[in-house]
Amino acid sequence: MAAASAALRRRLLYICRRMNQSQNWPRIAVVGAGAVGGYFGGMLANAGAHVTMIGRQHFVDSVRQNGLFHDTLHFRKHISVHASTELSAVEGSQLILFCVKTVDTVSTAKGLAPFLAPDANFLCLQNGVENAQQIREATEINALPAVVYVAASVPKPGHIKHVARGDLVLPESPATQALAKIFERASIPCRLTDNIEGELWAKLLWNCALNAISALGQARYGEIAASADARRVMQAVVDEFWDVAHAAGVRLPNLPDQAAGMAGVLKIATQMSEAMSSTAQDIQRGRRTEIDALNGYIARRATQLGVDAPVNHALFTLVKLLEASSAVQVKK
Amino acid sequence: MAAASAALRRRLLYICRRMNQSQNWPRIAVVGAGAVGGYFGGMLANAGAHVTMIGRQHFVDSVRQNGLFHDTLHFRKHISVHASTELSAVEGSQLILFCVKTVDTVSTAKGLAPFLAPDANFLCLQNGVENAQQIREATEINALPAVVYVAASVPKPGHIKHVARGDLVLPESPATQALAKIFERASIPCRLTDNIEGELWAKLLWNCALNAISALGQARYGEIAASADARRVMQAVVDEFWDVAHAAGVRLPNLPDQAAGMAGVLKIATQMSEAMSSTAQDIQRGRRTEIDALNGYIARRATQLGVDAPVNHALFTLVKLLEASSAVQVKK
Repeated sequence: MAAASAALRRRLLYICRRMNQSQNWPRIAVVGAGAVGGYFGGMLANAGAHVTMIGRQHFVDSVRQNGLFHDTLHFRKHISVHASTELSAVEGSQLILFCVKTVDTVSTAKGLAPFLAPDANFLCLQNGVENAQQIREATEINALPAVVYVAASVPKPGHIKHVARGDLVLPESPATQALAKIFERASIPCRLTDNIEGELWAKLLWNCALNAISALGQARYGEIAASADARRVMQAVVDEFWDVAHAAGVRLPNLPDQAAGMAGVLKIATQMSEAMSSTAQDIQRGRRTEIDALNGYIARRATQLGVDAPVNHALFTLVKLLEASSAVQVKK
Repeated sequence: MAAASAALRRRLLYICRRMNQSQNWPRIAVVGAGAVGGYFGGMLANAGAHVTMIGRQHFVDSVRQNGLFHDTLHFRKHISVHASTELSAVEGSQLILFCVKTVDTVSTAKGLAPFLAPDANFLCLQNGVENAQQIREATEINALPAVVYVAASVPKPGHIKHVARGDLVLPESPATQALAKIFERASIPCRLTDNIEGELWAKLLWNCALNAISALGQARYGEIAASADARRVMQAVVDEFWDVAHAAGVRLPNLPDQAAGMAGVLKIATQMSEAMSSTAQDIQRGRRTEIDALNGYIARRATQLGVDAPVNHALFTLVKLLEASSAVQVKK
């Protein structure tokens, strides 16, 4: 009798857990099926959420046939997600992860706007510091910025190779407190901050210090960190960045000075030593890079603010030349 | 009688000219069978000189089979030259054109020294400003610097594709006055100067402003000159270069200020708009570049002289990273 009761209790507990797993998830849409969208969308779907991913035809074909393949630090498996090429597939979603390249931010947001519920949470999981503001200026969408830390790549459509980290920083608010819990349930560490601008710039700092050097030198982060000359170039980038941030009135969190900024960059480079930057990956595939939103942004702000940033400007310019050259090669 | 006498005179004149063409040439050896050695060696051989070219096995095989092929602004033809893989083939030469990459300067000069006649004229037709001095310090060879202006490439061994210019600047002396006449006879414009150091630095200036940008951006000189951002990077390179040259006490000939320096660089870029830099060509072939003797030299001198040169240092560093990366790719 006692044994039968214990068995029943265990079974009820099991059923409750299963219900919890499949319930209480918002319906989620991921717009942009690159490494960032693929990683976070897959983690949420793997935890039980209904996730629709919007990407190009070859991505959708691959996912409909085989699911989304995650080769991550946690597991190697196929994950079931919904996939569509249509922006209208966001309809009915309560949470939108906006993961397109910065070059497509405004045009894609305009395309999404007619299909979004007014109360949908819209998070920009993108590089750069201007995306959410650009979207709010161009549409009715109440876009929120998010800072993304993940090293991942897409070796082929629907296949996510995860190398390091995979965590988010969101601006503190009641809405984002609820979102953070959702991410944490999906094993995505999520921190809230009252200084999201500073957090975005802190991410921008290491994007500026690493992305272009990795692309132009075709070098992994570990190779860059191991070179005394490359560290000196990164220090020049950091010093210029610091002057621009200071002139722009940005408070960089937990980074009291340039030395701390440089130490942070080197820590990231060491944590992700095997990674090539997304800029390097874009160049290798003949795609447009986000360099306008990275070193290009710092160079533009430097000019506006009357600050010198010749190394950031040189890195931006060289990537633009290389981008034009590799685009020509791909068109051939 | 008068007609017969006139015909005889014409015939004698013709014979004298032919004898002049084949006589009064020094025996010439060209060490290094790249674009520079191939262009100037071929021009001299085409004019009638006995030219021995020393290069790698595949160059020698190609030249012995087909001659040296010149696809130049002047003509497209096969030119007969002697070819050898052995440094000892310089024996008996009165004029040596030393055309190896700067990375091989000292080791190759040491290998040549035992075979050189004491009175042989030894000209360094190389990039960089240190070659002749390095050779004089490391050997007994009385090496003279030469400034080379030519845009040419080697699409395959023994095949020279010439795009623009093809002229030399030598330090003024009785010996070089004779050498200049030899070059002029071979349609190689040759100017003498009492400020060879300044002339070498003037060439270094445009190598610093163009070579690395062409290599990192995979861009032709015309594309670089057409980009406002690239011109701004070049201006930064020129400004830093100027500070270093000034601190080093170098007098740049006919270049009163940075604006003139920049104008000179842009003129070269426009004259050679279709050219990719030798650094770009080296990277494409997985070979070591001369960047240590170009932006790397300016970065080192800047450090020695207490001058800032962050853009030159960044360009140097990025090419070194890319060189290491492309060397790995070639080894695969």
